[in-house]
Amino acid sequence: MKMTWDGYGKQLVKLVRVERHGETHEIADLSVCIRLEGDFAAAHSAGDNSHITATDTMKNTVYALASDGTGEIEEFAARLVSHFLRINPAVSKATVDVWESPWARIPVGGKPHGSAFVRAASDKRTAVVSGTREATTVRAGIDDLVVLKSSHSGFEGFRNDIFTTLKETSDRIFATAIQANWLYASTGLAYGTLWQGVRRTILETFAQHDSRSVQHTMYAMGDAVLATFDDVAEIHFSLPNKHHIPFNLEPFGLRNSNEIFVPTVEPYGLIEATFRR
Amino acid sequence: MKMTWDGYGKQLVKLVRVERHGETHEIADLSVCIRLEGDFAAAHSAGDNSHITATDTMKNTVYALASDGTGEIEEFAARLVSHFLRINPAVSKATVDVWESPWARIPVGGKPHGSAFVRAASDKRTAVVSGTREATTVRAGIDDLVVLKSSHSGFEGFRNDIFTTLKETSDRIFATAIQANWLYASTGLAYGTLWQGVRRTILETFAQHDSRSVQHTMYAMGDAVLATFDDVAEIHFSLPNKHHIPFNLEPFGLRNSNEIFVPTVEPYGLIEATFRR
Amino acid sequence: MKMTWDGYGKQLVKLVRVERHGETHEIADLSVCIRLEGDFAAAHSAGDNSHITATDTMKNTVYALASDGTGEIEEFAARLVSHFLRINPAVSKATVDVWESPWARIPVGGKPHGSAFVRAASDKRTAVVSGTREATTVRAGIDDLVVLKSSHSGFEGFRNDIFTTLKETSDRIFATAIQANWLYASTGLAYGTLWQGVRRTILETFAQHDSRSVQHTMYAMGDAVLATFDDVAEIHFSLPNKHHIPFNLEPFGLRNSNEIFVPTVEPYGLIEATFRR
Amino acid sequence: MKMTWDGYGKQLVKLVRVERHGETHEIADLSVCIRLEGDFAAAHSAGDNSHITATDTMKNTVYALASDGTGEIEEFAARLVSHFLRINPAVSKATVDVWESPWARIPVGGKPHGSAFVRAASDKRTAVVSGTREATTVRAGIDDLVVLKSSHSGFEGFRNDIFTTLKETSDRIFATAIQANWLYASTGLAYGTLWQGVRRTILETFAQHDSRSVQHTMYAMGDAVLATFDDVAEIHFSLPNKHHIPFNLEPFGLRNSNEIFVPTVEPYGLIEATFRR
Repeated sequence: MKMTWDGYGKQLVKLVRVERHGETHEIADLSVCIRLEGDFAAAHSAGDNSHITATDTMKNTVYALASDGTGEIEEFAARLVSHFLRINPAVSKATVDVWESPWARIPVGGKPHGSAFVRAASDKRTAVVSGTREATTVRAGIDDLVVLKSSHSGFEGFRNDIFTTLKETSDRIFATAIQANWLYASTGLAYGTLWQGVRRTILETFAQHDSRSVQHTMYAMGDAVLATFDDVAEIHFSLPNKHHIPFNLEPFGLRNSNEIFVPTVEPYGLIEATFRR
Repeated sequence: MKMTWDGYGKQLVKLVRVERHGETHEIADLSVCIRLEGDFAAAHSAGDNSHITATDTMKNTVYALASDGTGEIEEFAARLVSHFLRINPAVSKATVDVWESPWARIPVGGKPHGSAFVRAASDKRTAVVSGTREATTVRAGIDDLVVLKSSHSGFEGFRNDIFTTLKETSDRIFATAIQANWLYASTGLAYGTLWQGVRRTILETFAQHDSRSVQHTMYAMGDAVLATFDDVAEIHFSLPNKHHIPFNLEPFGLRNSNEIFVPTVEPYGLIEATFRR
Repeated sequence: MKMTWDGYGKQLVKLVRVERHGETHEIADLSVCIRLEGDFAAAHSAGDNSHITATDTMKNTVYALASDGTGEIEEFAARLVSHFLRINPAVSKATVDVWESPWARIPVGGKPHGSAFVRAASDKRTAVVSGTREATTVRAGIDDLVVLKSSHSGFEGFRNDIFTTLKETSDRIFATAIQANWLYASTGLAYGTLWQGVRRTILETFAQHDSRSVQHTMYAMGDAVLATFDDVAEIHFSLPNKHHIPFNLEPFGLRNSNEIFVPTVEPYGLIEATFRR
Repeated sequence: MKMTWDGYGKQLVKLVRVERHGETHEIADLSVCIRLEGDFAAAHSAGDNSHITATDTMKNTVYALASDGTGEIEEFAARLVSHFLRINPAVSKATVDVWESPWARIPVGGKPHGSAFVRAASDKRTAVVSGTREATTVRAGIDDLVVLKSSHSGFEGFRNDIFTTLKETSDRIFATAIQANWLYASTGLAYGTLWQGVRRTILETFAQHDSRSVQHTMYAMGDAVLATFDDVAEIHFSLPNKHHIPFNLEPFGLRNSNEIFVPTVEPYGLIEATFRR
């Protein structure tokens, strides 16, 4: 028997960091996942753990490195990747995922409070940094950006086979929870500004597109991001089609003029693609 | 054997309603739960379903009544309650829960789009209307309003017993997911405006309070709501204490000046109370 | 403003206890929730915590008391209730919920292994003990006992109103996740044996009943339990109707002889009742 | 911009099939996910859906093909793969995941009932069949097989770095939720018998192994499966380390002789590897 791949690490290390500037605090709310690959064969075949950094140590490392500040999540992930490559010669590759939950200041009398916060939105900012001793790649992303458009969306002209019952429509609800991640062409970028820009571009494209399918709008969003941001080399989308089915009111002598929908959870369509410059 | 209580109904009827005014659409995204109580003994003891409104019919009713518009969720719930009391003489009490997920218009070039939306926040607006042939009560509420304050929060002077190890602190993170619901003193109120007002009062009180415990701030929030809104007769809070534990950096020769916290999921404190005028 | 009710405690204290008898181990896998009620008004109104047992102390207490063994979950809950009433004079009522996840020994060569276990089933055994200085009540229960019967189940003769579209059927799938809890008439009973007996009675009745509705079978299960177990004073059921909808194969020229079903998650019926001797 | 990869399909098509042989019924409880890859570029770039099989049609296909019976889940997945390759010339590759929830007959008076079932275990049987016009691969698997061993498990001799605080132990609880999937060397095998055999081999190896780490036991399980089953060409494991942390009873003057553990949910270790013959 040979082992053709292995990796291990710590999942869901949760961290909240408070940075205090007098009465004004900044908070970072992060979840970190770490995976190491390298020369760990003896641990598997002989129970020899001498090359193994305990996953508990990985957890400690997250909190210890955060004590210097976390910065942008791409930077924090990169520091963790570098650390594990440096601290353990058996490690040939380290991958760190970070996601950040958004908080906004609570407005009090119209002014944002210095140290009281409310969860701002449902979507999360994500980063994945992967590094070997030779190279590092930085990906950023968005998770669970829930959107819906109630016009300029149809689905027509699809294949008809023996099991097709879906009717063509030029006016359907298009709802999804956008998951996107993109590869940066270089490192050391203004990650925060770029992330805000990509998120805005995706949202604006979604809003304005005359959609003939999920694929069609996904392509338009990819195109807009790559056209606008030179620093983005590649973008990947994963879009669940959160179907909204018109409820049939005819049995009650009522008309449903595309107003009353049943949002369904399962089954759901899933449409994915990767676009490159 | 006697049956001392029974009730039945339909849970999680999901409804999205699109109201179209040319290019400007309004959407309502609701989940509805219905429970009927009444004279259903024969169904239990003899399998006689003649008094039973099928839960499938309840589901249909939600969509059918929504075709006239839903209005404020308290109003929609009240219409459903009235309907079930009217349509089935065996029903003596009907209870309808509605909760609404918030959407915001996607900004495009700084202007809100007419028919494209993004999930606005994590908290939900809720209503529970309960009615008999004699009386109706209307409760409104908030669910999962996630907040955190990083100053003006301590926990000191609690009882010390043989199993106490928690240290007193005058500076701890206070984080919770506020669940609140309140009883209105009358019906036919400006529910939307009131709900926004209560939510704002809760948030502002949470932000500004010098908290000595979750109980202490919960009381202050109840007090503020009852002092501000004459229409609120009673308010109930359920506040999970989402503990944030300072991470011990001493083994690494580092200091944690109340900056690095481990947010924990379980176990968690749960603090509840009901306040009346 | 007056406070009309309050209570607080710790939720989801997780505990695994290993009892070692040489190579043969016993494990108990418990989740514990605690709620105290009493004289805590000053904590709310004045931030005076002197009557407050910290929820962190409650957590410690669970592990400390478990070091003497846990016994049946009803007994462990009762010990915790007694402890909190004794240790804090401000407490007038304590309620402890415990639920236990089932494990079975892994068979090796046909013989059960002494210290290796596999999760045995999806249902959990539950207990709720509630005590004041005057009295204690013990409830036991079952949670998430997922069952399905594919014969001897129909739903006919229900009310027909303007929004009814459901067809009557004498042959439908009846699937549910049984949640039941029952009050014991006294304490100090053979809780483990009783629990196994009630579970078996519920399952056998579900299997054998000619069901005209969920209500009908729920009543039969309640009747069987109360008829069989003198120690049970009351039983409550909460039964979600996990609808299985026949898929319409007619558009494809195929027949569905009640063979192909779509199990749905939402919306779902919920049928509840309490039966007393 | 170029599209470097794309695929789409339907997720979570749920199906329950009842096969009736008089009073004895068999049930199959399946979830099916489908993904198609092929020549769909025009859908993305031009909104031309003529090559697109609607995901709604995929859903219908699952139910329609099930009307002939489902057989082993590997066979049902393979029939779906063949169907989509045949029905749509634009499809170059189809991948179908199926997982099956286990049910057992309810025993009544010691005898298994013919048509009443109880959920049997928490783990699921899975299959993934992937096919092009040239070749088909069949993988089978297990998901969420929750196991725990309370002896013969340690973790010692791991690397010590500046952030290491974990103590070595020769006696720890090893708990995990086994996710495994394996590639068959050929098709048309006795999939049901093989699956039972692989599951049993994994469980027995887990139970009997003297574990020095999760890696060590994972390797042993892979080795045992590949040694026993010639039809398995490759096996992949993904093992979350469900940490059980001894609770510190010293502050209370009590001893914890490795008896009282806190099972934790997060963070958790994750150990993965692929083994080949």
